[in-house]
Amino acid sequence: MKEIIVQKFGGTSVGSIERIKAVADRVIKSKESAKNIVVVVSAMGKSTDHLVGLAKEISAQPDPREYDALVSTGENVSASLLAMTLIEQGYPAVSLTGPQAGVRTETLHTKAKITDVVTDRLKDEMSSGKIIIVSGFQGLNANNDITTIGRGGSDTSAVVLAAAVGADECEIYTDVDGVYTTDPRKVENARKLETISYDEMLELASLGAGVLHPRAVECGKENNIVIHVRSSFEDGEGTRVKEVDTMESSRAVTGVAMSENEAIVSVIKVPDSPGNAGKLFTELGKAGVNVDMIIQSVEQGDENSISFSVQRDDLLQAKTISEEVAKALNAEGVETDDNVAKVSVVGVGMLSRPGVAAKMFAALGDAGINILRITTSEIKISCAIPRDQAREALNILHATFELDA
Amino acid sequence: MKEIIVQKFGGTSVGSIERIKAVADRVIKSKESAKNIVVVVSAMGKSTDHLVGLAKEISAQPDPREYDALVSTGENVSASLLAMTLIEQGYPAVSLTGPQAGVRTETLHTKAKITDVVTDRLKDEMSSGKIIIVSGFQGLNANNDITTIGRGGSDTSAVVLAAAVGADECEIYTDVDGVYTTDPRKVENARKLETISYDEMLELASLGAGVLHPRAVECGKENNIVIHVRSSFEDGEGTRVKEVDTMESSRAVTGVAMSENEAIVSVIKVPDSPGNAGKLFTELGKAGVNVDMIIQSVEQGDENSISFSVQRDDLLQAKTISEEVAKALNAEGVETDDNVAKVSVVGVGMLSRPGVAAKMFAALGDAGINILRITTSEIKISCAIPRDQAREALNILHATFELDA
Repeated sequence: MKEIIVQKFGGTSVGSIERIKAVADRVIKSKESAKNIVVVVSAMGKSTDHLVGLAKEISAQPDPREYDALVSTGENVSASLLAMTLIEQGYPAVSLTGPQAGVRTETLHTKAKITDVVTDRLKDEMSSGKIIIVSGFQGLNANNDITTIGRGGSDTSAVVLAAAVGADECEIYTDVDGVYTTDPRKVENARKLETISYDEMLELASLGAGVLHPRAVECGKENNIVIHVRSSFEDGEGTRVKEVDTMESSRAVTGVAMSENEAIVSVIKVPDSPGNAGKLFTELGKAGVNVDMIIQSVEQGDENSISFSVQRDDLLQAKTISEEVAKALNAEGVETDDNVAKVSVVGVGMLSRPGVAAKMFAALGDAGINILRITTSEIKISCAIPRDQAREALNILHATFELDA
Repeated sequence: MKEIIVQKFGGTSVGSIERIKAVADRVIKSKESAKNIVVVVSAMGKSTDHLVGLAKEISAQPDPREYDALVSTGENVSASLLAMTLIEQGYPAVSLTGPQAGVRTETLHTKAKITDVVTDRLKDEMSSGKIIIVSGFQGLNANNDITTIGRGGSDTSAVVLAAAVGADECEIYTDVDGVYTTDPRKVENARKLETISYDEMLELASLGAGVLHPRAVECGKENNIVIHVRSSFEDGEGTRVKEVDTMESSRAVTGVAMSENEAIVSVIKVPDSPGNAGKLFTELGKAGVNVDMIIQSVEQGDENSISFSVQRDDLLQAKTISEEVAKALNAEGVETDDNVAKVSVVGVGMLSRPGVAAKMFAALGDAGINILRITTSEIKISCAIPRDQAREALNILHATFELDA
């Protein structure tokens, strides 16, 4: 018998009364194997979008404090409906708003960080045998005002609460049954992982795997909370995100990921003078353009070319800014390439196993795939390649690192 | 310049973003004549009905605590939207939930009474120059749980808050422009009253005038708060509900009211034994049937007839219960009459002016209207009459007491 389990159900899982009843059934079933259950819920289906729509009718930039007061009501609706359903079925339950559950945040609105959880009420309700339903995505700041912690933040609420009450595990119920070696829609023999490390999950989350909010993973890592990603619709184990000893990791690469939404901008023949690259990236940063892979190449005499990759959605803006800076710096001009994708291999095992990069480059080279750019972190190697070869590259890398085994 | 005005806007007034913007305009205009404005709002249009509908999908009798947690979100939505609108227009504003505004209630759910208002936050926000928008209909109980104070309770929230902050006046904005001498849809020359006393308003509220919740009137009387009933749609003064010295009251009768929804039940020939009437009304009370005018008549020997009026909606239930009791008591039987209406004259002036009842009975008698039952309070005389003569009776009484003058 486990002591405490925290479970999180997203907006789709609580999107109707019928779905809420299905969630209640699952919670009741879990109660057989755990003494205490704390459930974190998102707002029902599209209800947050509805509230945001009302605010946008009033203002393009609604007052942040009032925006939080408004949108936080959505989670309170689903929390009380779920508690009501459990009580109706004979299981003592209580819904708590983020503030009632003791979730304290920074004063900042719309994307406050959780600073603390005052667990008195949670402990009281648990000791009286109640299943606790907490509104995700929200907390109380030092001004006694309701804050929200950013979209997708219910994952983070769940992990923070799991840490605060000392839960055995934090279960994140979602519409997929776990984390895969790669996108199953793109690689036929993608395989569900039993476990994945926090760091690998962070790399995959930022690469667009999307099953788990990155802040939730960070928070799990900081507090060493096992996060169990599993299906709302099926029984059976999902994938556990947890600390994995790099020396014990059985393989060099855990997963491969691909993003087709990439583009490259090159500023040609920039006069070689200190601070020129700095000027370019300062302007891009001011405009909120996220720059990824940068290459600065000496081409001839005192002139460099500076080349970088951006998200394809940012290409037009990046091009305009680059052209302005190029003119100011007396560079020759700006070239762009939007036929670009990025493939990445991720694995904590590569820390103790040299040769992963060489193997990756060789596999792509053997298939005639041209590598345009490379970036690496300790546990990740990413290559920019032509977009029309991206899917082929993903399958090759999945096979090369034997991820289907 | 007034110090503090409290204003209450109902669900229809905040039923859409367009309507909320109109309310904001009115609040801004009021800010010219008062240093501080506290606005109390109901939930948008039908949104409470929508939430109640969701709860009813789960349970015929939803858990009361969770029910309150659920439905109270509706007022929070409209409060934050109104604050957002004011801020967008350049007026500092802040929305407060009932709990944040310091509204404290009994622990009882769904119909808690307000016990206290902790005004610290209200005073802080006022001293920082903000227009305060408070969610009506809700408060916080001693368990730190959200309670609601019953439907129509936003009127009461407004009057209680007006008393707590020492407001000059509590304005209730509604879809009529004031309180009339009688229903203007039924009597052509009904006249809007400038003022009406709390007691008269209470009698008229319970007689179905419906512009103001009775608990709000009681609360206004207890705290001597002037309640100004006025139109959401038009400018101009409405009706002020306030203390009126009975000796100074310029007329005996202030208003006349009529209810067509009445019926009479008679239990025939009940053996005269102590407690028999008690048994009948105990059973009716248990079933929640509200009994109004009772007549017990000695007909012959040791047998009485017991006759009473009820709301027409309760007639079937009252008849069934009466028949059971009649059988148990060996009474002869039960007769009913559902062709009944009730006309009432109300006025604090009748306390110092004898002869009002005589004048009323004479006027009805002269018109050939048969009086079936009579009840009186200190400031009210009601007569049950045949329904088909009700409208005629109303017009006769309105003219008799010169209410059109």
